[in-house]
Amino acid sequence: MKGYAMLKIGQTGWIEKEKPSCGPLDAIVRPIAIAPCTSDVHTVWAGAIGDRHNMILGHEAVGEVAEVGSLVKDFKPGDKVIVPAITPDWNSLEAQGGYSMHSGGMLAGWKFSNFKDGVFGEFFHVNDADGNLAHLPEGLDPAAACMLADMVPTGLHGVELADVQFGDSVVVIGIGPVGLMSVAGAALRGASRLMAVGSRPNCVQIAKEYGATDIINYKEGDIVKQVLDLTNGKGVDRVVIAGGDCDTFAQAIQMLKPGGQIGNVNYLGEGDYVKLPRVEWGCGMSHKQVKCGLMPGGRLRMEKLASLLTTGRLDTSKLITHKFNGFDKIEEALMLMKDKPRDLIKPVVIM
Amino acid sequence: MKGYAMLKIGQTGWIEKEKPSCGPLDAIVRPIAIAPCTSDVHTVWAGAIGDRHNMILGHEAVGEVAEVGSLVKDFKPGDKVIVPAITPDWNSLEAQGGYSMHSGGMLAGWKFSNFKDGVFGEFFHVNDADGNLAHLPEGLDPAAACMLADMVPTGLHGVELADVQFGDSVVVIGIGPVGLMSVAGAALRGASRLMAVGSRPNCVQIAKEYGATDIINYKEGDIVKQVLDLTNGKGVDRVVIAGGDCDTFAQAIQMLKPGGQIGNVNYLGEGDYVKLPRVEWGCGMSHKQVKCGLMPGGRLRMEKLASLLTTGRLDTSKLITHKFNGFDKIEEALMLMKDKPRDLIKPVVIM
Amino acid sequence: MKGYAMLKIGQTGWIEKEKPSCGPLDAIVRPIAIAPCTSDVHTVWAGAIGDRHNMILGHEAVGEVAEVGSLVKDFKPGDKVIVPAITPDWNSLEAQGGYSMHSGGMLAGWKFSNFKDGVFGEFFHVNDADGNLAHLPEGLDPAAACMLADMVPTGLHGVELADVQFGDSVVVIGIGPVGLMSVAGAALRGASRLMAVGSRPNCVQIAKEYGATDIINYKEGDIVKQVLDLTNGKGVDRVVIAGGDCDTFAQAIQMLKPGGQIGNVNYLGEGDYVKLPRVEWGCGMSHKQVKCGLMPGGRLRMEKLASLLTTGRLDTSKLITHKFNGFDKIEEALMLMKDKPRDLIKPVVIM
Amino acid sequence: MKGYAMLKIGQTGWIEKEKPSCGPLDAIVRPIAIAPCTSDVHTVWAGAIGDRHNMILGHEAVGEVAEVGSLVKDFKPGDKVIVPAITPDWNSLEAQGGYSMHSGGMLAGWKFSNFKDGVFGEFFHVNDADGNLAHLPEGLDPAAACMLADMVPTGLHGVELADVQFGDSVVVIGIGPVGLMSVAGAALRGASRLMAVGSRPNCVQIAKEYGATDIINYKEGDIVKQVLDLTNGKGVDRVVIAGGDCDTFAQAIQMLKPGGQIGNVNYLGEGDYVKLPRVEWGCGMSHKQVKCGLMPGGRLRMEKLASLLTTGRLDTSKLITHKFNGFDKIEEALMLMKDKPRDLIKPVVIM
Repeated sequence: MKGYAMLKIGQTGWIEKEKPSCGPLDAIVRPIAIAPCTSDVHTVWAGAIGDRHNMILGHEAVGEVAEVGSLVKDFKPGDKVIVPAITPDWNSLEAQGGYSMHSGGMLAGWKFSNFKDGVFGEFFHVNDADGNLAHLPEGLDPAAACMLADMVPTGLHGVELADVQFGDSVVVIGIGPVGLMSVAGAALRGASRLMAVGSRPNCVQIAKEYGATDIINYKEGDIVKQVLDLTNGKGVDRVVIAGGDCDTFAQAIQMLKPGGQIGNVNYLGEGDYVKLPRVEWGCGMSHKQVKCGLMPGGRLRMEKLASLLTTGRLDTSKLITHKFNGFDKIEEALMLMKDKPRDLIKPVVIM
Repeated sequence: MKGYAMLKIGQTGWIEKEKPSCGPLDAIVRPIAIAPCTSDVHTVWAGAIGDRHNMILGHEAVGEVAEVGSLVKDFKPGDKVIVPAITPDWNSLEAQGGYSMHSGGMLAGWKFSNFKDGVFGEFFHVNDADGNLAHLPEGLDPAAACMLADMVPTGLHGVELADVQFGDSVVVIGIGPVGLMSVAGAALRGASRLMAVGSRPNCVQIAKEYGATDIINYKEGDIVKQVLDLTNGKGVDRVVIAGGDCDTFAQAIQMLKPGGQIGNVNYLGEGDYVKLPRVEWGCGMSHKQVKCGLMPGGRLRMEKLASLLTTGRLDTSKLITHKFNGFDKIEEALMLMKDKPRDLIKPVVIM
Repeated sequence: MKGYAMLKIGQTGWIEKEKPSCGPLDAIVRPIAIAPCTSDVHTVWAGAIGDRHNMILGHEAVGEVAEVGSLVKDFKPGDKVIVPAITPDWNSLEAQGGYSMHSGGMLAGWKFSNFKDGVFGEFFHVNDADGNLAHLPEGLDPAAACMLADMVPTGLHGVELADVQFGDSVVVIGIGPVGLMSVAGAALRGASRLMAVGSRPNCVQIAKEYGATDIINYKEGDIVKQVLDLTNGKGVDRVVIAGGDCDTFAQAIQMLKPGGQIGNVNYLGEGDYVKLPRVEWGCGMSHKQVKCGLMPGGRLRMEKLASLLTTGRLDTSKLITHKFNGFDKIEEALMLMKDKPRDLIKPVVIM
Repeated sequence: MKGYAMLKIGQTGWIEKEKPSCGPLDAIVRPIAIAPCTSDVHTVWAGAIGDRHNMILGHEAVGEVAEVGSLVKDFKPGDKVIVPAITPDWNSLEAQGGYSMHSGGMLAGWKFSNFKDGVFGEFFHVNDADGNLAHLPEGLDPAAACMLADMVPTGLHGVELADVQFGDSVVVIGIGPVGLMSVAGAALRGASRLMAVGSRPNCVQIAKEYGATDIINYKEGDIVKQVLDLTNGKGVDRVVIAGGDCDTFAQAIQMLKPGGQIGNVNYLGEGDYVKLPRVEWGCGMSHKQVKCGLMPGGRLRMEKLASLLTTGRLDTSKLITHKFNGFDKIEEALMLMKDKPRDLIKPVVIM
């Protein structure tokens, strides 16, 4: 079969591979809609997870089941499915302890285009089909549903980590597709004042549509100062970090009230340390809590988040700025993600 | 001063009383907008809290500060304020333990028209002004803000007790004004499927506008069966009880998934026992948790909930079906609450 | 193979059965130590789970692995293992949602001597060996470890459900083996005043050794009154229910402070309703929360609880009042459990 | 009256001051037992909170009420009381939000020898007597009870922040008096494996008595390596930081499992940043949560923690290595704290 792969650090291309084989608990899936992710770009061009050779890329997909293992009970060939980027081993100790995304080791619930071939192939392999696939609800657009693989659960997990409550003031740093989902998620979980930090005009526009009440543009001055000015110097209850880098945490600490909470879902690709400023962190006494985490994956999560789309609570179609048709457009879509033109939020390829 | 009072069980009327006096931490407030509550009706005509004589009624108000005690720091005469129905003693052991509404004893954070005169007087007394009043945000309509005293915090607390999470399926039982706020609150906290149990047409209409995806009408059959039918027999994640009576809990248990949670905010005025059906409760092993509670009051809560109104997340004006002008219309408004005409949700009196 | 079975309601006996077969994820285990449970008695003589025919009894065991399936990674024949009474399907939606004991349906994580043969056979079958077995730590006595299957996790889960915090006052109702583990668990989680409700002298003695500060004997008067007398009428922070019946909850509600919490782990075998007294429950406004649940099983839980034994935090050997040697003594041990002589807490059979 | 004061940074001495005056909610207290704290040393000789002039030192005391304000209900002259180091303003927004220690601003619940004179005077002032004093239980030794002011609540709060659960493996870094209370608290909350990091022989001895199962001595090699070696490379569930400096957090992150949690209660007196190592923090995706906080004070907390002493769950007398008699010995006790002889854990002065 054909797949679009990382050949080595810095290089991608089409390759031929054996169709993956299906264990007793597994499924083989044919993609219907896929989306490239900034992580794919980091994986290839920044070498973020180390070197990989001829590894098929991609971890965001909606697909059709082609084959299932003998022990699979709830899925059969022909079923249309949502495939989460994170596909845990559910009987692992980590999953039993509530951290399925770290099943088998830190971050090891992330398998696609990390430990095995990803979803940019004619077929791809899904471990534990009953535990990790979700049926695509009837009538749900595959392109919109494809955002459920990573953008929605990651963005919303930031809101969960920050533990937004009714009437909280919230800052979301970063309004790429994940950050926009954090904005939507914070509004959906009861934030009142909701400040989104970003500058690209189309993202700003969508952030407002998703519920941002204020836009903080770093080009207009220090973002900490802007947040403090907007809150009479008091700071906010919660900060969701969905963009920036290691230095963003120092800003987040400075924006927070004592007892406030940071939820980070931004993958930190470089830097030695995340630095928390001692004085503003109350000399380690501030109750400004720092939480972070990889998105929860698996079937239940996909079903729950899909229900937000089918009931109209969340509209992911606004994220999709570029649509391609045909398997061979994967390359073009990925390159778009790499080049990030000003009008891009998220491209999707429909097969 | 004049006040509209419970004279004794079953009887109300206008009375003359001394203007309340102001302790060092207190405020005396003149009402700007008040609303009668079903509790006032229960207090007078069902004797729900026992007998009271010449007690001024009412616990929902927005007002103007007339006088403050010597130790009050953040309020001064002339300030427009939101007054919560629950005004805790913040230094009590119960409040220190997180249950300010029970400060000084079970439910004893509820003082207005319970342990002391309520807000249907020319003036009323507020204990701990700094801890219990909130400034009325500029531009916020006093009638809409008056819903913050009880309807909003009670309705939303049901959602908190039920612990609604992203994508949860939720039933709200009862769509009077509190139940409608539970519907709005569940939608605002990330519910997907949201079933509202009620039958009055205008409430049904507003429930849909607040986010209900399904209406369950008890006149069309057993509500448990309807909920199970809508969920393929699986039941729902959460039930908020905002209406009904002691028997409603048995229905709620039957609608719930294992691991589901009930949040009750309905004041149970009669009956000896709330009964949980043993078998459907999994013989005491189901993890179907039963939570209940009086609304949290106080200043922070009012400020946070007011911010939901000022940022447009919540629109309480839909609750107000009847508006009266003038202090002397309190009687008419209360009688309306007592008689509950079909088109009533909530009346407000503007002074 | 031979097994000791429920023949039908009210009747037990030795039967011959095929040795169970081993699926790819499973293990076949030979018992080393087993213990009968009050549930076995209820199952047979009260028909608590309905009729069963020739079903091998028992769900508490330590054993030796005889065979493993092809996909099992962490266990091999000859390994000594702790086997939890609850062996969830870890990829089920319920387990993904945090309620593994209800995997596949309410209480359906309980499989032994419920949906399939139990552990009182020469061999027994364990689903998902990697997810549900735990290695028996070197040096840990199999009889003491056998208490980890059900008594320890059930007793300690009551403490978790009641959410005992540092310095809380706690009542544990019932001081059979589960209740004694609740007493030990409450002390181990930071309770200060710890009242144990029971009357049998040896249980009373052990309850004190496990940390009870006061014994409440129902033969000496109303237990609610005794608790209120001991707390100056204030009641306690938490109640763990590990004995009694449906009516015990009314007592528990009356003993609790507002904001207090009940954790029930007592299997309620009969009665139509658990009844919460309306007035003492604060008319549904008291924040007296009612939680209940089947014990969490699985491997991680067994490993964590075993570590309490190996580090000397918990001594389960005190529970074991009767020790038998030989597979054929299972009948005698079960009959002891049925007859409950005054000096019995828990019998164990060593093979 | 006489008091032992910080004259300026680096200098202490006896001074004369007016006896403090008592507001309507306040109490004036005469010390019975006091203890100097490392914070007093930092305040004077490191200038940790900035310059102060003629400020009476000390924030750990048991005393006798000399005078109460007109609105105080539960205390009267002659009452013996425990005085927490943190005395919040309970009606503040921060306290209403659950963070009473930050009432009025970050860390501003800490008033003694920070914003006002401390307890090393013939008399000292306590704000909100009903909310902040606790009656000294009959029979409780004032010296042992004096540890409740700061050592116990700070040490135990570390355990709460780290959220220790039954059977967790825990590292406590630092075994001065606070760290020893973290060790005792971790054992008291259900830790199994409990590793204490320290080297002073008498502290090591006491740590073992309080429940440490392993001692990690930094003089014997890298503490991270030692912890990983003891846990087969897996790391631990929780780390409580009760000593060290800004760099300790990097070690704590490296010791933790994914999903683990750090609870810091060590006051970080110097350094610009707390640094979390990016890679070991899972590139911001590890769910290794970083929590910190000043101890909760106030009356309820003191009552709950005192009940741990009266029921024998916790024995603070082991902390007290040096006892002095007489008000004029305060200087000697403080100098001991400053000089930290090898056999010192905590000195107490009895009046």
